[in-house]
This record gives sequence, structure tokens and C-alpha cells, in this order.
Amino acid sequence: MGAAQGAAAGTRPPRVVAFGGGHGLAAALGAWRRITPELTAVVTVADDGGSSGRIRREMPVLPPGDLRMALTALADEADRTRDMAALLHHRLGGSGVLAGHPVGNLVLTGLVELHGGDTVRALDDLCRLLGARGRVLPMADVPLDLVARVESTDPDDPARTRTIRGQVAIATTPGRVRDIIVSPPDPPVHPAVLEAIAAADVVSLGPGSWYTSVLPHLLVPRLRAALAASSARVVVVLNLEPQPGETDGFSPEEHLTVLRAHLGGVPLHTVIADVDSVVDRCGLLSAVRECGAELVLAPVAELGGAPRHDPARLATALGAAAGVG
Amino acid sequence: MGAAQGAAAGTRPPRVVAFGGGHGLAAALGAWRRITPELTAVVTVADDGGSSGRIRREMPVLPPGDLRMALTALADEADRTRDMAALLHHRLGGSGVLAGHPVGNLVLTGLVELHGGDTVRALDDLCRLLGARGRVLPMADVPLDLVARVESTDPDDPARTRTIRGQVAIATTPGRVRDIIVSPPDPPVHPAVLEAIAAADVVSLGPGSWYTSVLPHLLVPRLRAALAASSARVVVVLNLEPQPGETDGFSPEEHLTVLRAHLGGVPLHTVIADVDSVVDRCGLLSAVRECGAELVLAPVAELGGAPRHDPARLATALGAAAGVG
Repeated sequence: MGAAQGAAAGTRPPRVVAFGGGHGLAAALGAWRRITPELTAVVTVADDGGSSGRIRREMPVLPPGDLRMALTALADEADRTRDMAALLHHRLGGSGVLAGHPVGNLVLTGLVELHGGDTVRALDDLCRLLGARGRVLPMADVPLDLVARVESTDPDDPARTRTIRGQVAIATTPGRVRDIIVSPPDPPVHPAVLEAIAAADVVSLGPGSWYTSVLPHLLVPRLRAALAASSARVVVVLNLEPQPGETDGFSPEEHLTVLRAHLGGVPLHTVIADVDSVVDRCGLLSAVRECGAELVLAPVAELGGAPRHDPARLATALGAAAGVG
Repeated sequence: MGAAQGAAAGTRPPRVVAFGGGHGLAAALGAWRRITPELTAVVTVADDGGSSGRIRREMPVLPPGDLRMALTALADEADRTRDMAALLHHRLGGSGVLAGHPVGNLVLTGLVELHGGDTVRALDDLCRLLGARGRVLPMADVPLDLVARVESTDPDDPARTRTIRGQVAIATTPGRVRDIIVSPPDPPVHPAVLEAIAAADVVSLGPGSWYTSVLPHLLVPRLRAALAASSARVVVVLNLEPQPGETDGFSPEEHLTVLRAHLGGVPLHTVIADVDSVVDRCGLLSAVRECGAELVLAPVAELGGAPRHDPARLATALGAAAGVG
């Protein structure tokens, strides 16, 4: 907590590393960017669905979709870069093989190829182009597959558990995920990721699809070791509601219990939950205490809309957790 | 010639409209950009091969390849925009349905879709992004098909002439093209194109694939009418060598004879030919005179390399033809 307090004392903005994927990570980045420019997004590379899945089946690159979303979440808010972000998100139309690919997935893929496979250089290029506040890095240097042991919920299924491979399959399985691993089991991690973790004052995990965007970071041994060795405060942002399929019916405390089972030496300092999304406050508080963490119950959801985190409200809670509130 | 001479008198740079497609137009633009910033490229939209052909079969957009090449030919020469141009030209790899698509074709297509089909707005956006010197416009607002009457060169072919449809088919036909039309026969032309022609001091045609990149501009009635009504000097840049297939064995004077047959009221002031590519100077001179034009024989080819126009040398010849030499 020393480093974050140093930041709080006004000497410099806190160095933050935000782990996640998809819309959840974009929400965390939308909040963190209000607090600090010293921001690194570490993004899942296990997506095998949609455009990303089609691209990784065609060529040896990391699935680009989550990386693109993190990039645009950090984009400058000038008109020019907003237009650019809109273009990167635009999905090609028509009725052919290009239909549905976001332009940014193809741009990132082309740029990685142009740089001889150097994803980090391509991401840095796009950050510059977007005037991004912060940096985007992949959680591993190779595409990952998630492999889960899933408990069947079909009473007629003779198998009690099944092994399900792939992010899409896991995210949509009607069974209950029991545990999850990544394949390959010890993927290479870019030095820039390890350096960012070592230098961080705060790291955040979540919100996001729990089994496919949040937990995978803890399943990569080199990331877990770097987190365990770091002196950063570790903040977990819980989801506002369960994910259909993978965490159907999961309460916030169940999310936390699953996370705790995968921490493997990574300390946990703060858990942020939306005050209106928690039904059993006592249950959550005791789950948080079992992790040795403090609970921050705060209004972090969007007012009256879809169940989404509100960037400004989440920033207030994250700032407090980071010691800059 | 009055307007061009006004420009030559130093009052302002000449307004130039360069017609063509593909590498030939890029060469002309590489030369013109050394002379004037008041530069408009008018680009063929009849390509039905490669990436452009695949894209126009998938969605209702203009084939983007020739437009992309013209855009990057006008790009600023700063490092950032050079990198951007390299990315737009990069062709996706792998072994799937994306393989071979230049990133720029997909970016332009996405941007056109994002702007609700407004190709000119998308081109202006990309010009800004590339810091382009000049503007790029499509020759028509709808994709065109070329339809050619081709004389068979196969003695066993019972048909003396065949109708061949499509730029790729025509460009690679072993027969000899007799005449060529566009389909639809009177396509809409963007007002910006007509305004650029009306305001031009000089227009250039070629170099480039004669039947598929140069002549098509004269086959669109609204372009031909605008050119006939314009007071601009009309400069034709002949190719350095015949195109295999469509103009196999064509001498420079035969190129000119074919062009003349399609002028339909468009005046022709200057013909530029490479001094070392012309075998029969007398024949060419008499063909040029029959068009009512003057012949400029100049060294415009690259030294010692592939048969390509050299931008600096071509600029000298174009500048002289434009009255700014």
C-alpha cells in the first residue's frame, strides 16, 4: 500500500494495471482513465468466437477483439480519434465472408503481420493513432484456449462432469463450471506486462465474464507469480449480475469464492461491489474477509439503464481503493 | 491554355485533374504532386478482380483497390503517414477467406458503410488521415462493368468476335479488343468530379492499362461531356510498353489511335511519350498530329529498373505540358 499512498500524497499519479477482457475491462478502463494516465490494460487472448475466432483460425495472431475494445476504451476524446474509434468498431456488412468483422480487428491483425508478428508494437502504434491514455498489452504472447470442467445440469446426462474447451463453449455452457485451466498451461508473457505489474501501485481484476475474462489471468503461472511478487494493491470489481451460462445464479460471494480458489498466492486487498446489486451483505462481507480483503460497497452501476458500470461512479470507488479518492 | 498560362505566370498553382487507375495513375499522381497541391485524382471503379472484386461481390460498394492506390500515392511523406500507407497496402496473410485483402480496401469499405454509403466523404476522411496532397474521387457513383468486343486470335475459334465482360477478363483476353463500353452506359457522376473538371487548368489521362484504366473515363457520357466543355489542356501520357493481353503488341501510335476513336469531342493538346520507348517516331508524330495535339518526347522512364515512369522525370514533362515547366 506504500506506493499507492505515495501517489495519494500527490507526488505522482498512481501506476495502474487493469486485467480483464471485453466490455468489463472497457468499463474498468473508462473509470481508471479518469484517475491516472499511468494505465496499462492487460487483455485476455482466449476468445475463440465471432470475428476473433474466425481470424485466429485463419492466421497465427492473437484474437484481436478484446485488444481492440481496450484500445478504443483508452482513446482520446477528440473528434478525430472518436471517429477513428467508431471506424475500428464498425462491423463490415454485406452477406459474404467479411460480414461481421469489426474493421479494427482487421487493422490490428494487418499491423501485427506488418510488424512481423510483434503484437505489442502494433498495439503501441494504434495507441498513438488513437491518442490513447495508457497502454494495451496482451496477457500472453500466444493465443490461449480455456479448458473447463463443467458439472452437468441435465439429469439425463450420464456424465456428471464434462470437459469443455473454448471460451465460447464455456461461456454458453448450461452446466456449472467447476474449474478451469488455460492451454498451453504456461504460455510466454511479454516482458512489458511483467514490468508493468512490478511497477504498479494498484492492479484491478474485473468486472467481466468471470471464467473467460477475469479468472484466466490468474491461470497463467507467469502472471500469477508476478502478481504474487508485486507490492501493488489488488482490487477486484465484482459484476453487477450473474452471466447467463457460465455464472448463472452466482451470487457476488460465489464469484469471490471461485476467485479465491484461483488466487494461488496473489493477495487481495479490496473488493468493490455495487451497493444495489448485493442481496446478502453479510454473506459477501464474510467471503471478502476470508480473502483478507476489505469490502467497498458503493453505487457503481449506471443509473436506470442496462446493468453496466458507470465510469464516473466506478472511478470514485476505484480512486478510494487506490488511495487517491 | 489561358488558365494554365495564368498559373504559369505565377499567380497560383495549376488546378489538375488526373484520370486513370492502378499503378499508372499512382505514377501520374507521384509526378503531379511535385507540381501542384490543387490535384484531384479521378479513379476507375470498374475493377472486378482480386480483393476489389471479392468486396464488390459481397457488398454494395465501389471496388476500393484503385481508390486506395490513389490515396496512398498522394499521402504526406512524414513517417507517420508513410507507416499508415504501408498498413493500407499490407495484404492480410493466412490461408483463409481474408488472405490477400489489403487492409486499406477493408478500411475504405468500412468507412463508406459507416458514412451510409458516402464514398466521397470516406475518401476525404482518409485523405485527411494520410495528410494527402490533393483529393481522390471515384469516376462514377456506382460500380461499373466493362464490356468489350474482342477479336479472336485463335484460328480454330468459329466466332470472329466475342463479347467479354469484366475488367479482369478483358485485361487478360488473348484476343484483340475492338471496342469497349461501360455498363451501366450512363452512370451517375459525383458533382465534385464535374466541378473539378470545370475548374481544371490541366487534365491528364494515363499512363495505365489502356482499355481498363484509361479509356473507361471517356466512355462515361457525363465525364466525356464535362471534358469536352472544359477549357483545360488535355495531356495524355502514353505507356512505356504494351500491356500483355489487352494491348499485346500495341505500338504507342496504336494506343493513340484507339484513344482517338473514343474521344468523342474531347480535345487533346499534348501527348507525352518516353523517348526511349518509341520505335517509329514518324508514325507516332503523325498519329499525334491527326489528334490535333503536340508530341512531347522526353525521358520519363525510370533509369535501369522495371519499365515504370519516374516521378521526377514525368513531373518535368507534365510541368512543361501544363505551362509551368
